[in-house]
Amino acid sequence: MRESFSVAIVGATGAVGGEFLRLFEQRKFPIRSLTLLASERSVGKELTFAGSSIKIQEAKPGAFAGVDVAFFSAGAARSKALVPDALAAGALVVDNSSAFRMDPTVPLIVPEVNPNTYTDANRLFAVGNCTAILLCTAINSLRSLGKMKRLIVSTYQSASGGGASMMRQLEDETRAIVNNATLPPTSLNQTYGFNLFSHNTAIGESGYNEEELKVIEETKKILGEPDLKINVTCVRVPILRAHTETVTIEFDGPAPSVEAAREVLLKAPGVTLVDDREANRFPTPLEASGKDEVLVGRIRQDLSNPNALCLMLSGDQLLKGAALNAVQIAELVLGI
Amino acid sequence: MRESFSVAIVGATGAVGGEFLRLFEQRKFPIRSLTLLASERSVGKELTFAGSSIKIQEAKPGAFAGVDVAFFSAGAARSKALVPDALAAGALVVDNSSAFRMDPTVPLIVPEVNPNTYTDANRLFAVGNCTAILLCTAINSLRSLGKMKRLIVSTYQSASGGGASMMRQLEDETRAIVNNATLPPTSLNQTYGFNLFSHNTAIGESGYNEEELKVIEETKKILGEPDLKINVTCVRVPILRAHTETVTIEFDGPAPSVEAAREVLLKAPGVTLVDDREANRFPTPLEASGKDEVLVGRIRQDLSNPNALCLMLSGDQLLKGAALNAVQIAELVLGI
Repeated sequence: MRESFSVAIVGATGAVGGEFLRLFEQRKFPIRSLTLLASERSVGKELTFAGSSIKIQEAKPGAFAGVDVAFFSAGAARSKALVPDALAAGALVVDNSSAFRMDPTVPLIVPEVNPNTYTDANRLFAVGNCTAILLCTAINSLRSLGKMKRLIVSTYQSASGGGASMMRQLEDETRAIVNNATLPPTSLNQTYGFNLFSHNTAIGESGYNEEELKVIEETKKILGEPDLKINVTCVRVPILRAHTETVTIEFDGPAPSVEAAREVLLKAPGVTLVDDREANRFPTPLEASGKDEVLVGRIRQDLSNPNALCLMLSGDQLLKGAALNAVQIAELVLGI
Repeated sequence: MRESFSVAIVGATGAVGGEFLRLFEQRKFPIRSLTLLASERSVGKELTFAGSSIKIQEAKPGAFAGVDVAFFSAGAARSKALVPDALAAGALVVDNSSAFRMDPTVPLIVPEVNPNTYTDANRLFAVGNCTAILLCTAINSLRSLGKMKRLIVSTYQSASGGGASMMRQLEDETRAIVNNATLPPTSLNQTYGFNLFSHNTAIGESGYNEEELKVIEETKKILGEPDLKINVTCVRVPILRAHTETVTIEFDGPAPSVEAAREVLLKAPGVTLVDDREANRFPTPLEASGKDEVLVGRIRQDLSNPNALCLMLSGDQLLKGAALNAVQIAELVLGI
């Protein structure tokens, strides 16, 4: 009989939490018992999993007794507070927050990219920033065609990156606008419906916002390329759940041909090539929504630099950008 | 008494046509008589200008008798067919289409950038592609700080670039989605509401679409920099009327400081600096909508290249990207 596990989700009521439940069923993750944890205000609510109703319990010290695997997706502060407790209780921890990603002792794994960057001693695993995961998954295979020197990335990030509340905000504002109604209150400093804005994270001395710095540092760690240069501008667009990125890859020598890149991407794990010039069909966030794979296309030589190749990608922020990658890590480490 | 002109608009019922009417009133363009021309199916409709109702007439040969200035905004095919007639009738022609932009004998003017690139012999003037106009207006002043070698641009283009019908399509689809109704029919090959897609123009051998090739060629012509290298990816986003662009500028030497760039941009004609890191306030298409100026901000050193500077811009596609630039050209040439 296959081994089965006592699993906990911290942040069960969030947008990523809901995806965990769907993925466990879809991938037949071997669960013996499931504990759903969230903040105090959700305690007593119920969620359905595999036909049974499960009561939400409070995420607090002591909640991890007997848990084999704990998936955290409740923000960096909660992870910092509770991950040590889960580890002390003996759980394997897969943390979707930014709390431990850049800790050199914590593996930051995208299973299609760097599955061998951990040892049996590792009990805590970090899931990268969604934009970085999608980027690494999309471009990893192209490294077989030449050494990458520099990436130039612009993002078109969806509301889901800001959680279920930001998705609701976008929908509510948009509904108000198209129905000529009064805009609902917002915690953003501007209207989101039919608008876009520079990513709403704090900006430091360098002029880069926190999201951009995460993409830069985490991409280098995931790819194992500390010297890779990365230029990224993160922008939030009025899209619900999948991120899009335009990417220019500068190689350390002439860029591979478009044909060679297509051939490699066709076989790349976690990638679907969507690159039909005649039909003008390329990755879109709507097509990427709900899909496990990252869509990659618009592959072309950079007319401004013979060493560079351009492409665009779309990937589901809640799946490959978060919950799916976390479940894949657990499957990898547990040998499922 | 100030000289006044007999003015015609070809494409009066379109999204840009409506902006011409507003701009003529707002800028007190000296109009003696106004002729509104459109395709046959609009003949007989009426539009209001300066309190009077004006009947739409058919845009056809012979329609330009007595016209001093003709503004064309009805697509390249109609411009190719009728501009010769308007010129033969003695009109000064300002053409918003792509028909004549790259003709070396036709000036392609952004008044803030290259106002001196015509002679008295020129009677036909082209208005550039909206993305190129906004880009040139935004970056022109920075050329005083160093020679630009290469631009890397990703666009976030609004529905208005596809005309009034694409704006309606976006609104109708979005209304259907948020109200859980059936999607209206579309001429696009995919859903636009809450989606984005690679610019819907034909793609040639190079893998670049027509919009991208326009941006590349026209930007070089407007800036008078035939050797400037340009990398651009054009993307349509679910925004109504203003375009946004992320821009990396590579200089032929160390990039100017952020402070120097800000100082120059503060004084740049046609530009409003929106660059507040602390308040996380930068250019957005919603703020740019209805404004004459191009908003510029997010100015920072490129962490991946010491010779490069990054910024983003938002500008009203229908105003500075089209109708306003056309009216400015007429004002420049007529000495208004």
